[in-house]
Amino acid sequence: MGYVRLAVLAAVAAHASAYSAVAPRSAMRRSRVATPVQRVPQTACTVLMATKTGVKAFVVGVAADSGCGKSTFMRRLTNIFGGKSALLDIGRETNTLVSDKTTVICLDDYHLYDRKGRSANKITALHKDCQKWDLMAEQVAAIKAGNSVMKPIYNHITGELDAPEEIVPTDIVIFEGLHPMLDDKVRSMLDLSIYLDISDEVKFAWKIQRDMQERGHSLESIKASIEGRKPDFDAFVAPQRANADIVIEVLPTQLVNDAEGKFLRVRFIQKAGLDLIKAPFLFDEGSTIEWTPCGKKLTCAYPGIKFRYGTEMYMGSEVTVLEMDGRFDKLDELIYVESALTNTGAKFYGELTQQILKNKDAVGSDNGTGFFQTLCSFKIREAYEKATGKTVDASAAA
Amino acid sequence: MGYVRLAVLAAVAAHASAYSAVAPRSAMRRSRVATPVQRVPQTACTVLMATKTGVKAFVVGVAADSGCGKSTFMRRLTNIFGGKSALLDIGRETNTLVSDKTTVICLDDYHLYDRKGRSANKITALHKDCQKWDLMAEQVAAIKAGNSVMKPIYNHITGELDAPEEIVPTDIVIFEGLHPMLDDKVRSMLDLSIYLDISDEVKFAWKIQRDMQERGHSLESIKASIEGRKPDFDAFVAPQRANADIVIEVLPTQLVNDAEGKFLRVRFIQKAGLDLIKAPFLFDEGSTIEWTPCGKKLTCAYPGIKFRYGTEMYMGSEVTVLEMDGRFDKLDELIYVESALTNTGAKFYGELTQQILKNKDAVGSDNGTGFFQTLCSFKIREAYEKATGKTVDASAAA
Repeated sequence: MGYVRLAVLAAVAAHASAYSAVAPRSAMRRSRVATPVQRVPQTACTVLMATKTGVKAFVVGVAADSGCGKSTFMRRLTNIFGGKSALLDIGRETNTLVSDKTTVICLDDYHLYDRKGRSANKITALHKDCQKWDLMAEQVAAIKAGNSVMKPIYNHITGELDAPEEIVPTDIVIFEGLHPMLDDKVRSMLDLSIYLDISDEVKFAWKIQRDMQERGHSLESIKASIEGRKPDFDAFVAPQRANADIVIEVLPTQLVNDAEGKFLRVRFIQKAGLDLIKAPFLFDEGSTIEWTPCGKKLTCAYPGIKFRYGTEMYMGSEVTVLEMDGRFDKLDELIYVESALTNTGAKFYGELTQQILKNKDAVGSDNGTGFFQTLCSFKIREAYEKATGKTVDASAAA
Repeated sequence: MGYVRLAVLAAVAAHASAYSAVAPRSAMRRSRVATPVQRVPQTACTVLMATKTGVKAFVVGVAADSGCGKSTFMRRLTNIFGGKSALLDIGRETNTLVSDKTTVICLDDYHLYDRKGRSANKITALHKDCQKWDLMAEQVAAIKAGNSVMKPIYNHITGELDAPEEIVPTDIVIFEGLHPMLDDKVRSMLDLSIYLDISDEVKFAWKIQRDMQERGHSLESIKASIEGRKPDFDAFVAPQRANADIVIEVLPTQLVNDAEGKFLRVRFIQKAGLDLIKAPFLFDEGSTIEWTPCGKKLTCAYPGIKFRYGTEMYMGSEVTVLEMDGRFDKLDELIYVESALTNTGAKFYGELTQQILKNKDAVGSDNGTGFFQTLCSFKIREAYEKATGKTVDASAAA
């Protein structure tokens, strides 16, 4: 499937010539996606229209709130599989991000109501009654089986439900959004499930930063917006943590007093006993460890870095937890930390460090969010390889 | 020197036959030490009487209070060098403990006053004015140079100053007692210095156990005895910690509420940058670590075991600290912990565990006192080998 995908990506047009043999097919597809498609009713079962592609997709669910660095997270998760990632080239607004081997589908596309409809029905996008669950389940099943689907689009700019776009399964398909693990049917089809959990304190600090300092919103309006979302968030989004294989929890630092959210304590929480992925650990598997690498051999900038590792109960399940508090100052620290970790899923010594450095300008590359999001991408690769028997070329990672 | 020593030890008489060639000399020595010697003035410079033996002794100072498991500690420190250890066979009361390669000299033997004299002069044995410093320095120098000395004896049973005994230097000579590191001249001659520091809380719990429960003393008399010793202890004994290469600090546990002193938190504190010995560490040198090995792979009995490692300032010097809180329940735990330590001075994998198990009936073998006293014996061996270029046979350890 990789070559078809490449051909439709404007961003990697230079590569297309290498696959001239497939030009007729790719040309056909390009013309289809570039031409305005006929509007289909949003509730139609588009699975019936699917093209059999033969690529059985490895399906990952990622639950993440909006405005919390989700696009950076998605880029980290897909970069590991190589090739540039870009929005699907359909000549109009889309939420779908594609690369050679990956497709990231935004679950907002399954909104039942457009912005006006939500307002009229007094329902938030967080509410379970605001999603087309049956359609979502059908399309996840179709994609998993290797069939193309016509997926609806929610236009974040206009707030409208746009005409569907064709999704051709790639090797890895990520369903990201508010509720990938809420519906039983959808959840049971996920090969791996991940939840990015930003604590209220950190969300608040980030919103202040962005909405107040950059967009001029008032502190009151920011508080009101957070408080207004909280009931539905707590009712329908947060409970999914119990069903996630991996939770990345982002908390305020414990190293210093830091009201601005400059420093973060991030926890990589992995359910125990998973078939597809091994649990990463620090020094000694199954024990409990607190580690401050900064000291005699490694001098870290203030306020330093502290790691923790241990086994605990999390929302009713046994989990292993890797925690990082603080910020990396330079390369030495990264590789030093990586050398203390086992079961990262790295394919060679230093791959985790290399991968973080490749994306070093992305938000959070110097703290636990970047570190554990990258670790998470390694876990997706590990699970994918275990489940499919295929091998991902480590040198291809972007 | 080993053969001479062996010949005079009744406990190892069976070995003596192997050295029949040296019978004349050993017979001569035996007759001398067995015959009541003439009383010499306690202040005489006995160095002049010394016999040149040619064995330059490696000299270790061990500061330790009485009634705190000192004899167990001494046994652990000397066992590592092989051969049985026993009191020097002089046919009367002695404090000197000898084995093939080691001699342990009790510094009480340099008391200036006998029990009556101390009482008459209202001075405790803890006070610096109660020791014969010049004689001690002369004899340490003589022994270090390989010369025998006639060392005075303080009789702990009668409280009197008995006639001297001849000390023939062995490869390792340990000076143990209240003040091995107080006098500048003596201290500067020590090749390695160790301080066993029992905290007041633990001392009190132990004294209650021994003096109240076993000897029927009253709680008040125990308190009075501790309080009475404290001023001189704090003035003349405790400050030596600043000069020790290694301090073993015994504290109450932090794992549980434990007024009886059943569980101990023990810290192995080693001065940074020593020439003769490397600093032991847990997992990662130069960092700070807290490790609870009990968990998934290793199930420890209540209240478990917790280790710490780090660098800190201790009485004005940079030190590395290894800490163990809690108690070992079985062999698994010991070897598991040993495998996480580096720079123990062990000569093969598991030697530390083996050595502790060989002495498993000794007090403290299941906690940090036994663990770190054994580690300390490895450090003496390491220092001895580095300083002398000689090799100690690990298989000989008792």
